[in-house]
Amino acid sequence: MKGIWTYHELLPEVENRARMSLGEGHTPLVKSRFIGPALGLDNLYFKLENLNPTGSYKDRFAAMALSRFVQQGVKVCLATSSGNTGAALAAYCAAAQLPCIMAIVDGAPEGKLQQMRVYGAATLMVKDFGRSPAVTDQVMTMLGRLAEEQQTSVQISAYCFCPEAMEGVQTIAYEIAEAFDEGAQVFVPAGGGGLTLAVARGFERWKQQHETARHHVVHCVQPEGNDTIVSALASGQMHPTAVPHSETAISGLQVPNVLDGLEVIAACRRSGGTGFGVQDEHVWECQDWLAKKEGIFCEPAGAVALAGVRRALAEGSLAPEQPIVCLITGHGFKDMQRASVMASTSGNAYLANEAGLKNYIIQLITKKNER
Amino acid sequence: MKGIWTYHELLPEVENRARMSLGEGHTPLVKSRFIGPALGLDNLYFKLENLNPTGSYKDRFAAMALSRFVQQGVKVCLATSSGNTGAALAAYCAAAQLPCIMAIVDGAPEGKLQQMRVYGAATLMVKDFGRSPAVTDQVMTMLGRLAEEQQTSVQISAYCFCPEAMEGVQTIAYEIAEAFDEGAQVFVPAGGGGLTLAVARGFERWKQQHETARHHVVHCVQPEGNDTIVSALASGQMHPTAVPHSETAISGLQVPNVLDGLEVIAACRRSGGTGFGVQDEHVWECQDWLAKKEGIFCEPAGAVALAGVRRALAEGSLAPEQPIVCLITGHGFKDMQRASVMASTSGNAYLANEAGLKNYIIQLITKKNER
Ligand SMILES: Cc1ncc(COP(=O)(O)O)c(C=O)c1O
Ligand SMILES: Cc1ncc(COP(=O)(O)O)c(C=O)c1O
Repeated sequence: MKGIWTYHELLPEVENRARMSLGEGHTPLVKSRFIGPALGLDNLYFKLENLNPTGSYKDRFAAMALSRFVQQGVKVCLATSSGNTGAALAAYCAAAQLPCIMAIVDGAPEGKLQQMRVYGAATLMVKDFGRSPAVTDQVMTMLGRLAEEQQTSVQISAYCFCPEAMEGVQTIAYEIAEAFDEGAQVFVPAGGGGLTLAVARGFERWKQQHETARHHVVHCVQPEGNDTIVSALASGQMHPTAVPHSETAISGLQVPNVLDGLEVIAACRRSGGTGFGVQDEHVWECQDWLAKKEGIFCEPAGAVALAGVRRALAEGSLAPEQPIVCLITGHGFKDMQRASVMASTSGNAYLANEAGLKNYIIQLITKKNER
Repeated sequence: MKGIWTYHELLPEVENRARMSLGEGHTPLVKSRFIGPALGLDNLYFKLENLNPTGSYKDRFAAMALSRFVQQGVKVCLATSSGNTGAALAAYCAAAQLPCIMAIVDGAPEGKLQQMRVYGAATLMVKDFGRSPAVTDQVMTMLGRLAEEQQTSVQISAYCFCPEAMEGVQTIAYEIAEAFDEGAQVFVPAGGGGLTLAVARGFERWKQQHETARHHVVHCVQPEGNDTIVSALASGQMHPTAVPHSETAISGLQVPNVLDGLEVIAACRRSGGTGFGVQDEHVWECQDWLAKKEGIFCEPAGAVALAGVRRALAEGSLAPEQPIVCLITGHGFKDMQRASVMASTSGNAYLANEAGLKNYIIQLITKKNER
């Protein structure tokens, strides 16, 4: 039994019999071969959270959430999700043999819903949920009451709702802390900010336990169309601000209301980090770059950290020799519509026979050599 | 730099500067919570090869193949694929900045092609390639000649074509050998048999290096519609036989001609293992079971080993207390058409408001409790 439980001493107590793992965590930390050098960065790393069991870092959350449910004898899982939390909870619920019922953000990508249903979860989309703050509030209040009646609690991957389960996510920081002998600059994509806070708190917790631990800096990156945290953080303010309507197209980061923003601003600042806003177009560019130049296929939200690095470089706020870590938070298969946009269209063909294939290949090679 | 290179002493020599890794290998070994007990097996394990970087064990092959190319200064990658080898090669080619050109089996699933293209590979489908033995031979011969002209070699994940790169796959056995203190029965899905041979050879190699190593048994599992190896193996024969036409629908295991079959039969037999044929319907059932009862989402080929375990149990040839390992070889996202068949249809709805959601959830919970 490994997974997040490698760090059980740093996690909320769960009895051995109740600890669940589907192999989450211990994700690869891969050094950039192309993008780093192209940007003049000697030590750019990608932490591949997309290789978690259900394809996102949320498995660390779900492992902790369901373990606590098993320990407490809870009989049903209620949750809200825009996709990744839902897939993670659905998988761990399947493993724990608990029914999983989720209120889904209106407009969540079909592929993410499909994945939840494969694991047997009930996915209930509600009109304007996650879009209209009023509807969102009503749904949340109702779910909270229902959960109480059913002796369960609503699972949402944010400290303001589920602080214990979020401690599962702090294991990302423990793994990074173990991997580096120097202090690193860690770039984290944020919607509500729970992930960023988990990373920052994780490093603080690690330092309490390990006297000689290095100091790591945590930067928060948001799409400009959902800037609840990063401008405030960068400009020295204390308070996050809700946006009337999320304008970004990056699934998973569309969180117009304030969740963990206040704590994120304080924690990033304590670490010496700041905030970066990025444009959706730059995020897509980075996503494409990661696939075609590094062999890393992530969903758009998974490329946001790299877009943040580029932004930081443009602002002149990164030293080129420092270790820099981008969290690649979700897998490309989560959003196959984007994938079909990214797919190279040159060099695809249906050929009648071996001779046609030969000619086509020779053409391709000649073209490549001419470049 | 970890990945397969953890075992560099057991791998073909590649200089440090040429070693490539995208975080392949070190895949989780998860103990069954539901299916094992339901089958009366106390120690059933799943080795999650679907969590490799591109979603299948072929990343171990591609890591070795591309590292050798980098070492040798090869300038282009030519390959054939039904899907998973192609995605793996495409990703590692992207990381190595080598053009990747592939002849694709006619009828390979669109999702698998898409993935290769995301990494920038050229995917050339050839009419009847992989279906008609004659066309297949012609294409292979032509590719071989072309490869020679281009000072490269055609990459195919089988020992009869690429023995060195296949040694990368042997790391699966090294990881299993390290994980168990007792001898295990390992079930491996087979098309051409390269994977099975890699596992069997890997255990033999491990034993040469580790005097106190346990003995592990390797069983080969094939769909009945592509039985080139398993009936021969089970009935004491020496020789595999080609089938005129592959009748299985399991993508990745449609290999009507004989590749590594002869060596597979000998190696499984030396290990004390045998062969099992399974029906496509049972494979799909196992795939669905893995998702809904264990939280493991794999492609159909990834569920073949479990179908083999059930077959072995039905034949009375498994001791219930022995450790049993199923290789889960490919991720569910590889075949989203199957996923949409698997997706639960009950409990999905688009609801107008919070009141509708509440009623729906209460209905669902009531229904679950009645069961
Ligand atoms: C892929 C991905 N990355 C990042 C995040 C950001 O998480 P948070 O809302 O905790 O800031 C999410 C949240 O859903 C996500 O799915
Ligand atoms: C998912 C999966 N499992 C198993 C195999 C079997 O491999 P082999 O042809 O080496 O027997 C393949 C080969 O493509 C595969 O893609």
